[in-house]
Amino acid sequence: MSRFFSTDYRALTPYTPGEQPRIQNLIKLNTNESPFPPSPKAKEYAKAAAENLQLYSDPTAKRLHEVLAAHLGVKPDEVLATNGSDEILNFAFMAFCDKEHPAAFADLTYGFYPVFADLNGIPYTEIPLSEDFTIRKSDYLRINKTIFIANPNAPTGILLPKRDVEEIIASNPDSVVVVDEAYVDFGGESCVDLIHKYDNLLVTQTFSKSRSMAGARLGFGVGCKSLIADLNTIKYSTNPYNVNAMTMAAGIGALEDEEYTRANCQTIIENRTWAADEMRKLGFFVTDSKTNFLFAKHETVSGETVYSELRARGILVRHFTLERIRDFNRITVGSRAQMEALVGALAEITKGAAQ
Amino acid sequence: MSRFFSTDYRALTPYTPGEQPRIQNLIKLNTNESPFPPSPKAKEYAKAAAENLQLYSDPTAKRLHEVLAAHLGVKPDEVLATNGSDEILNFAFMAFCDKEHPAAFADLTYGFYPVFADLNGIPYTEIPLSEDFTIRKSDYLRINKTIFIANPNAPTGILLPKRDVEEIIASNPDSVVVVDEAYVDFGGESCVDLIHKYDNLLVTQTFSKSRSMAGARLGFGVGCKSLIADLNTIKYSTNPYNVNAMTMAAGIGALEDEEYTRANCQTIIENRTWAADEMRKLGFFVTDSKTNFLFAKHETVSGETVYSELRARGILVRHFTLERIRDFNRITVGSRAQMEALVGALAEITKGAAQ
Repeated sequence: MSRFFSTDYRALTPYTPGEQPRIQNLIKLNTNESPFPPSPKAKEYAKAAAENLQLYSDPTAKRLHEVLAAHLGVKPDEVLATNGSDEILNFAFMAFCDKEHPAAFADLTYGFYPVFADLNGIPYTEIPLSEDFTIRKSDYLRINKTIFIANPNAPTGILLPKRDVEEIIASNPDSVVVVDEAYVDFGGESCVDLIHKYDNLLVTQTFSKSRSMAGARLGFGVGCKSLIADLNTIKYSTNPYNVNAMTMAAGIGALEDEEYTRANCQTIIENRTWAADEMRKLGFFVTDSKTNFLFAKHETVSGETVYSELRARGILVRHFTLERIRDFNRITVGSRAQMEALVGALAEITKGAAQ
Repeated sequence: MSRFFSTDYRALTPYTPGEQPRIQNLIKLNTNESPFPPSPKAKEYAKAAAENLQLYSDPTAKRLHEVLAAHLGVKPDEVLATNGSDEILNFAFMAFCDKEHPAAFADLTYGFYPVFADLNGIPYTEIPLSEDFTIRKSDYLRINKTIFIANPNAPTGILLPKRDVEEIIASNPDSVVVVDEAYVDFGGESCVDLIHKYDNLLVTQTFSKSRSMAGARLGFGVGCKSLIADLNTIKYSTNPYNVNAMTMAAGIGALEDEEYTRANCQTIIENRTWAADEMRKLGFFVTDSKTNFLFAKHETVSGETVYSELRARGILVRHFTLERIRDFNRITVGSRAQMEALVGALAEITKGAAQ
């Protein structure tokens, strides 16, 4: 830290991204990336855009917003594309929380929420999940706070039924409810259509997971026109050209190739079911994931041992040190071959431990 | 504005980017883009990266930082790549200014500085340029504020000699001085080598202008290790994957093709000299630009007339409404053919007005 660093940020504990080691032949199941390349159309459009990088990207993202809005069944001024969904989430913390409007989110959820809150000097409440890691709806009714719900939740993978989310939105009419649907395409039910019913709903999604575009950085928010206008005020005061031309083009390509996305999601769901079943046979407790990852702990082998033994076998998963979940690992659902390698390794690890 | 928008941001006046109309055959000289495509290597690397977008970009930008550091003659932990140089500038406002450490910058300079200050609730002083649009060095000595100097300055194009910048840095040892060198490659003298002499110097640059990568969004900061560490704290609390994989790859490609960049800058300098001379013959006052744009006013025709008459002829330049410079236009230096079209149009416009 330099002697010049503002006291506003000296106490910040930044977010720790999952490891991105560049190791050959590593089976990388730690950051919920897709095992599939992006759609051929996404690649084609991105490459075409690379030819003309001397021109600024369109700050209004007009074409992308039009295609995205058509895809979602909303109007172009009801969406805002950002540099990954982290950016739209940060914009939402900035726009809809402050000292008088504290934030609220689960104690076990996307680890960036408390960082965004701290970054922006926003007080927040962490609401404990139930013992079974589900969100207890009643904890969120009429709480008069800006609520962030990852749905399905991470790292638990568990889905809160849409009717429960709607009840939370309806019961907090004077606070914005942000529903972070990063993983919705793997078995969730989106709340996007509710934006026309509730002016306090912002839904965020990402192209990183189901559309195989983590490296392109493309996220977006969907909400009523006035919420999006507020987020645009933040955007145009922060980074008007926030989405680069190649990513914008790739996003349009991916949206024009929705069948490719759907087919990949279906494969992930099948691989998830297979891997979860096999892991349960090996003595793992595995939550009912509606995402592209599994959240699991073994009946006897510690989470840390599973993590390090997998790593020793060239398989990288994500382990958290938080007390409540230290015996769990979050494991990305990859290709069938990757899942077979995973299950094979876990069979070795858990067999060894039982002896 | 929604009823939920934080009072912290309600009074914000966002930055207004230059128009990005998608009009066929428009000669676009309003946002200081390069008339040349990006380096073939930049394109090649970006396209290769498009193949693997399913993987996150490296949040540490290790390889890009190494190549960039080698290019600049500094160490990798003395640089930080960002999503355009707007992002590094915003990070600098966040990290090195606060209510107790106000900002200071010229009254005529990059229009985003006051927006960043307002966004972050930072008080600031606008220091008037001299009558001739130069920065008066004495106004910046021992002022005990976080100083932002665009050098060469925009929209004036005028360079402050390096020895003067150094004197400002040396005379404010307890405040960070940010030297924004977005246009330095067109005839400026970089202060990058001074980062090893002064721990209060942050230099920012961009790939948007000289490297023809405006659409890719790549900027960076250079400073001593502890300043960069502070900026990383902000980055990892805001958007750890801030630079996408294609842009990172394109940046490496551009740096490996430095001769291409140098040759393009040389051409721009030649075209600038030619166009400025021709414009002076037509009765324009043109500042001594060391950038890829000209800042000019005519002796009789108003700035607004020049702007709108050029636009009517399919040539787009940037006009500002600020009282002090309302008779000026900022005109990007493009290809020789574009400059010939510009001068031809200006000859018509100024001839008509004199009759």
